[in-house]
Amino acid sequence: MNDRLAPELVDRLKAIVGERGIVAEAREREPYENDWRDQYHGRAAAVVKPANTEEVARVVSLLAQARVAMVPQGGNTSLCGASVPDESGTQVVINLSRMNRVRQVDADNNTMTVEAGCVLANLQKVADEHGRLFPLSLGAEGSCEIGGNLSTNAGGTAVLRYGNTRELVLGLEVVLPDGQVWDGLRGLRKDNTGYEGTLGIITAAVLKLFAKPRSRATALAAIDNPAAAVALLSKLRETCGERITGYELISRICVDLVLRHIAGSRDPFAQAHPWYVLVELSDSTEGEALTGLLQESLGDAAESGTIRDAVVAASEAQRDALWKMREDITEAQKLDGVSIKHDVSVPVSRVPELIARASAALAARFPDIRIVAFGHVGDGNIHYNCSKPERQEAAQFFLEAPEVNHVVYEVVSSLGGSISAEHGLGVLKREEIKRYKSALELDLMRAIKKTLDPHGLMNPGKVL
Amino acid sequence: MNDRLAPELVDRLKAIVGERGIVAEAREREPYENDWRDQYHGRAAAVVKPANTEEVARVVSLLAQARVAMVPQGGNTSLCGASVPDESGTQVVINLSRMNRVRQVDADNNTMTVEAGCVLANLQKVADEHGRLFPLSLGAEGSCEIGGNLSTNAGGTAVLRYGNTRELVLGLEVVLPDGQVWDGLRGLRKDNTGYEGTLGIITAAVLKLFAKPRSRATALAAIDNPAAAVALLSKLRETCGERITGYELISRICVDLVLRHIAGSRDPFAQAHPWYVLVELSDSTEGEALTGLLQESLGDAAESGTIRDAVVAASEAQRDALWKMREDITEAQKLDGVSIKHDVSVPVSRVPELIARASAALAARFPDIRIVAFGHVGDGNIHYNCSKPERQEAAQFFLEAPEVNHVVYEVVSSLGGSISAEHGLGVLKREEIKRYKSALELDLMRAIKKTLDPHGLMNPGKVL
Repeated sequence: MNDRLAPELVDRLKAIVGERGIVAEAREREPYENDWRDQYHGRAAAVVKPANTEEVARVVSLLAQARVAMVPQGGNTSLCGASVPDESGTQVVINLSRMNRVRQVDADNNTMTVEAGCVLANLQKVADEHGRLFPLSLGAEGSCEIGGNLSTNAGGTAVLRYGNTRELVLGLEVVLPDGQVWDGLRGLRKDNTGYEGTLGIITAAVLKLFAKPRSRATALAAIDNPAAAVALLSKLRETCGERITGYELISRICVDLVLRHIAGSRDPFAQAHPWYVLVELSDSTEGEALTGLLQESLGDAAESGTIRDAVVAASEAQRDALWKMREDITEAQKLDGVSIKHDVSVPVSRVPELIARASAALAARFPDIRIVAFGHVGDGNIHYNCSKPERQEAAQFFLEAPEVNHVVYEVVSSLGGSISAEHGLGVLKREEIKRYKSALELDLMRAIKKTLDPHGLMNPGKVL
Repeated sequence: MNDRLAPELVDRLKAIVGERGIVAEAREREPYENDWRDQYHGRAAAVVKPANTEEVARVVSLLAQARVAMVPQGGNTSLCGASVPDESGTQVVINLSRMNRVRQVDADNNTMTVEAGCVLANLQKVADEHGRLFPLSLGAEGSCEIGGNLSTNAGGTAVLRYGNTRELVLGLEVVLPDGQVWDGLRGLRKDNTGYEGTLGIITAAVLKLFAKPRSRATALAAIDNPAAAVALLSKLRETCGERITGYELISRICVDLVLRHIAGSRDPFAQAHPWYVLVELSDSTEGEALTGLLQESLGDAAESGTIRDAVVAASEAQRDALWKMREDITEAQKLDGVSIKHDVSVPVSRVPELIARASAALAARFPDIRIVAFGHVGDGNIHYNCSKPERQEAAQFFLEAPEVNHVVYEVVSSLGGSISAEHGLGVLKREEIKRYKSALELDLMRAIKKTLDPHGLMNPGKVL
């Protein structure tokens, strides 16, 4: 154990969680102290792994009384340093991975009650086994845990149709900063009696389930510009309604990077186009009706000049290939060199303006910077990434990051957008948020935080 | 003006809102002091009608400094006394009905930004004119205002598909209890940077819009019991998915009351059945496919014995007649005599148990009481109303109300339910909620309330 924690406290922690519940070896603690991208390196006073809600409550109560700061942790897949301790060696990591039971599946109520440490992909599987869909889906789903998804209100690829994580929750069980347990595990579709207690450690949640999709139709449409993507979405909404499940914008440079770096990839069209949208419909009915609907809608859009061309997947293999191209962008961009990433959102109708204005402003200041813009345009959420100019040194490029960020965030802010659409704030954007949120809003957040966590022991140094 | 308010304060209020913004005559103040059902009678120190957010902010700031309590008010259609002042004559009603502008409709972003005083039916109309649907729909829609819907998280007939009011909102503008304006009017589908500021006066909101339904299919299914309604819903979810837009449980006594008291009504079936569900599907596509899908699904359900019989509406007139029967229940029950009403919710899967257990417990204690149970079973939300025994005096019946409530709420509570599904707490259930919410939860609500409203001036005596 770390010498920063009084031996007596260590003994009392062990008495609560047992030997299995303490990560004792310094070497074994490393994965809990550093983030998975190896960008944030902390040192924990201890890493505790409680097995149930009562143990979490007793650990938090003990640490709160001893005025020791705590860092709640799930799968530790944060992209912004929210789930690791700082370098002081004084903070205790409370990792919830052992709390991974599905407590109940209520198919008639379309809910399941799960513990915070459940891995997202496992929950998708459990829902599927009960003939239901749990729609939250994102890159880290094989290792991220639902408690982390909840505390950060994770987004992903199905937000357009099903909403963010917070919209997928009906009830929570939370251990408050003083160790009291708030049991809000109600599977009620309607309940008008309270506030949500979000400032503590989420230990379990009641999640919404949905009808399983029984048919899918997927297409890639070639378009002139982002404005055409917005126009096409409005048209598709009228003909396809809520069947639209995926709607991803892709720029030509994204396709070029995938073709260059990912083996086996090929251009879905005979010629190059400036922009693309990947469209997916899904429906609870079986059969080919959906593919017909998509073909007809895209045919109309081609006729009216909204799109240049389109390919509709005729098989599961073609569908997978289209999605693989979208998913390969991140890896291809990484293989091509370093980049400065921005996960931003604006009203859907302002996406074209966001891309045009940010790109013009960056081109004026950094002529060789390469804009790799793609993402969930149906949610107004763009991954507006800036790749290093081909001839520039990485170190030199990163020196420019503050100015690059400033240019992008100023445009986002002027369009009424958010500088953190789905990745959260954590440590990464703690300073920047002060410029883009009103002083009043930050005061409110601090006041509520202080009311529930008067000694500032719960994940200190993050967000606020 | 009321003599409880210092003349100097009245002059300063007038200076902010003008003569038009003050309801001066005692007689004219009455509709603002009493609720529409004439059950709650208060007396206001003044009734102020600000025309814009700045006026609201200045009024609140002035009253907060003078430590005068305020009651925000919209269409004053609360069912539980939440929107009227108490009898002290010291509280100022801030009525928002003059703030009724639609500030923006952004069809590409599927949002509209509206002021708190907009009447709900007008907002439905504006959305429709822009080729979109605003799905919130409830009995009072011709006079209730969106600010009230938001502050109470109103439910209604479309929750099953589109969610409660709170799920229909992307951003808020709020005047805090000290008069500061929090501008959270962001039309972002993804924004992961804050808490919602819900303890103040909502002055405007960004609302979500949806694809307009272009086809509908409606049916009434006859069933044995509430368990069959739950089973049928699960079946329909698998075949019809999110097309299910309405799903209302109706007991035989409801039909009998409508047939007895509402002129022109007739039984949709040749014989009487113990229970019914009204099912409605809607879709953004045109044509008859939906009616076919519903017929087929109900045919399968009849074959497997889940339902006894069904009628599918073959025309708009037939559809209207089915919905009219559902909507006439409240009026028919009223014409039949007084009743004690309970707006409760439980997990959908527990609705049959709720009805069976509460009815058995009431029958044991009050043999002649008549249970009139109906409502949004797809949301787990039942209007569990108890009509007076035919031979009993109304006054005598109401003496039994506390015990009737106790019996019902104990069953609801034991099933993990809520005693206020969509009507709110207000004054009506302020005492009862103390028994059914945990002390910890009430402490949390009070702590947050106190942080934002330290002098307890914002709608005092309601909820907490």
